[in-house]
Amino acid sequence: MSIKSVLYILGKVVFLLGLLMLIPLAIALFMKEDTVVAYASVAAASLAVGAIGFCRKRKKLTIRAREGLAIAGLVWIVVSFISALPFFISREIPSLLDAMFETVSGYTTTGSTILTDIEALSYSSHFWRCFTHWIGGMGVLVLALALLPGNDTQSMHIMRAEVPGPTVGKLVSRIRVTARLLYVIYVALTALEVVFLLIGGMPLFDSIVTSFATAGTGGFAIKNASIAAYNSAYIDIVITVFMLVFSVNFTLYYLVLLGQFKTAVKSEELRWFAGIVIVATALITINISPLYNGIFEALRYSSFQVASIISTTGFITANYDLWPTFSQTVLVLLMFIGACAGSTGGGIKVYRLVVICKTAFATVRRQLFPRSVAPLKHEGKILDDEVRNGITGYMFAYITIAAISTLLISLDNVVFSEAFSAMAACLNNIGPGLGKIGATGNFADLSGLSKAVLIFDMLAGRLELFPILAILYPTAWKKG
Amino acid sequence: MSIKSVLYILGKVVFLLGLLMLIPLAIALFMKEDTVVAYASVAAASLAVGAIGFCRKRKKLTIRAREGLAIAGLVWIVVSFISALPFFISREIPSLLDAMFETVSGYTTTGSTILTDIEALSYSSHFWRCFTHWIGGMGVLVLALALLPGNDTQSMHIMRAEVPGPTVGKLVSRIRVTARLLYVIYVALTALEVVFLLIGGMPLFDSIVTSFATAGTGGFAIKNASIAAYNSAYIDIVITVFMLVFSVNFTLYYLVLLGQFKTAVKSEELRWFAGIVIVATALITINISPLYNGIFEALRYSSFQVASIISTTGFITANYDLWPTFSQTVLVLLMFIGACAGSTGGGIKVYRLVVICKTAFATVRRQLFPRSVAPLKHEGKILDDEVRNGITGYMFAYITIAAISTLLISLDNVVFSEAFSAMAACLNNIGPGLGKIGATGNFADLSGLSKAVLIFDMLAGRLELFPILAILYPTAWKKG
Repeated sequence: MSIKSVLYILGKVVFLLGLLMLIPLAIALFMKEDTVVAYASVAAASLAVGAIGFCRKRKKLTIRAREGLAIAGLVWIVVSFISALPFFISREIPSLLDAMFETVSGYTTTGSTILTDIEALSYSSHFWRCFTHWIGGMGVLVLALALLPGNDTQSMHIMRAEVPGPTVGKLVSRIRVTARLLYVIYVALTALEVVFLLIGGMPLFDSIVTSFATAGTGGFAIKNASIAAYNSAYIDIVITVFMLVFSVNFTLYYLVLLGQFKTAVKSEELRWFAGIVIVATALITINISPLYNGIFEALRYSSFQVASIISTTGFITANYDLWPTFSQTVLVLLMFIGACAGSTGGGIKVYRLVVICKTAFATVRRQLFPRSVAPLKHEGKILDDEVRNGITGYMFAYITIAAISTLLISLDNVVFSEAFSAMAACLNNIGPGLGKIGATGNFADLSGLSKAVLIFDMLAGRLELFPILAILYPTAWKKG
Repeated sequence: MSIKSVLYILGKVVFLLGLLMLIPLAIALFMKEDTVVAYASVAAASLAVGAIGFCRKRKKLTIRAREGLAIAGLVWIVVSFISALPFFISREIPSLLDAMFETVSGYTTTGSTILTDIEALSYSSHFWRCFTHWIGGMGVLVLALALLPGNDTQSMHIMRAEVPGPTVGKLVSRIRVTARLLYVIYVALTALEVVFLLIGGMPLFDSIVTSFATAGTGGFAIKNASIAAYNSAYIDIVITVFMLVFSVNFTLYYLVLLGQFKTAVKSEELRWFAGIVIVATALITINISPLYNGIFEALRYSSFQVASIISTTGFITANYDLWPTFSQTVLVLLMFIGACAGSTGGGIKVYRLVVICKTAFATVRRQLFPRSVAPLKHEGKILDDEVRNGITGYMFAYITIAAISTLLISLDNVVFSEAFSAMAACLNNIGPGLGKIGATGNFADLSGLSKAVLIFDMLAGRLELFPILAILYPTAWKKG
């Protein structure tokens, strides 16, 4: 691995992070908050350190698959660490591990929190916390590629390592243009949500940060009661719709912009996604309707929670820990399914689920009729062994991480369903789990070990395992 | 599918079942029990119906992969149903669904019970219940192949569909000889266990039925407190050792008989299995030692429970529901791992686990070094795509069944961990789960739907999915 190339990119990103931190600094200055010193010092340090790396431009960068993966893994760890410093320095989060948990949860768009009183935060920190969702949703590195100078061939492996979904890398021949285009769509949709929330009477600041948290499919709220605090059916519906909007592959919006509306709607993944959302909502609505005043109230809460979980956002409008076990099981299954590839959402992704179902079906068929040869297709194209083996390996690595994580968390003072759902909520970047860490709980009381494991899970989940595993792979660091 | 060929084999097996039922009938006569009528009538009917099918010998049987799978699936359902009739007719189990649950649990060597007072059963029914474990462990059809006339080429697909493990079919060129050899080893090891238990002072009847339940890795006990009722460290140790003995691939014992001891010990799967057992036992021993009088008592209970769960037997000597969450999580992971391929145990099997780990590791490597080509090996042989795709499809079908089953069971009056562990305990053919259906509980209070789902899971788990799925696959039944 070319460590110098990795450090060069790292320098660029740290510089960019220093620039971004000027926004909460401005808010702190404007609102005359105590957090000014914290944001000012960390921003200054980031700009200085970043600039050193940035200026020493190397003639030739070596960025192959392994450097791309290592960059993605390291950038996310370093960026989360630096972003955690203002919370720690300002004493708004007195423990550095907790602050790191919170920013990793932010960037990975998980939305799990260790805060027991969210409303006690300053405006600047509320903004910074939700802004990490927005940046993390589309990607720290994608933003760097969009904004900073560089060349395309190097960027390919970096972008491929960060953008969710197994096929995105193939689309992008002109990588910087694509990165910019993705951010333009992203900004436009976020702005649209802000407008809709303002119409519903939500305050401007709340609308902006809530839109950040929705767009990144993160789930950080600025109220202790999450979205339930606004107690408005209109706001619930707007957020439900936008959570689903941000769960869809952004390539489809790109196609719509190009006027290829029909091609976009024909997407197999989109149809599966829509089908799962409709079926899950229907099942839960029927199951919980005795608890609410009529079918429409049940529909309001069930559709919100289904959208919140499958998009891996994690906003809450109802205490689903009180729902029947059946509804909870549906939600747990949705946790693992997750959003579409190429969206800001987490989870295993609908794309992989479709391939998994098709592979299972084909295997049963093959047991019955060993001589029949029918190639597997997805989105009209034949799935080659390379793609299938990639997904298989991914799933198996995923299961291994899930099992070991649950085991380590179960050392904590929790019951099995809490340990299991904590892992599921973090590895799939959702946010809340069941029981103590459920709708009305938080992650504050977990042990240091559990928090460290969950930080690993959140990063592994957001970066789709490989960049984080690459850092741990011994021979990856060999010179050359 | 050639339905006539399927019915012919079915007739043979039903005849054999009638013969086997003469044993509990003899016990009932000897002990002058009320169950005489029940066993006599069902045995007579089975012999009569079976003989009709048996005598009408067809000139040419068509048994391809699909017939083999359908035969395995149907035989297991029919055999379980007929075997349930004596329990139902004698009113020892008043509900037919419950009686069916009990015999499916028996044949599939699961060991889950709907009996709230096991000790109320007659001797003949105790024997019959544990005998289903013994027959089911090695296989109903393997027994038929070993005992009844027929020819080898037809038998191959039948045997392949019933014997656990993905590669067994390849070994057996002379299938009937192999079937007999397997049963000889099986009888010898079972007899050995009986002797060891007698030495420990266990009554003869108890020793025989307990050995049946151990050999099949089933777990039915004849005491309400399971093996804990004997309260003997010696008996615990004997059963621990034999549960592990019956979890090992029987091919290895065959190799030992041939004098190839070194080859047997070199088995990669055996080494992984031993490693997992040792590590799991060590972890649980440390974790539970504060609850017991010293490390040796903790070791006695932990090693028994680890062997019981990984072998998928399900015997109990300690109420592990009171153990810390960490130990429970270790046990849940062991539930899924299961025994070695080609043993009488259930679960995903160590063989598949090893391939899964290797695939995951190779995928991470391939992400880092896309151009490197290193073939995957197992037991010194290269794993071809055919085998890997088979395991992948198996795993995905398994996950799908697990998810849908948990969902359906969660409609019942249970919490999530109970629904999840009920599915895990039945799909992996273990027996007890957590909570209400845990160490001190039983399956009696579940709804009819839950019991039906679990019956499906037990059969799917024991037959490794495909025979049961094959019956449900619409085009499999097309003529030809």
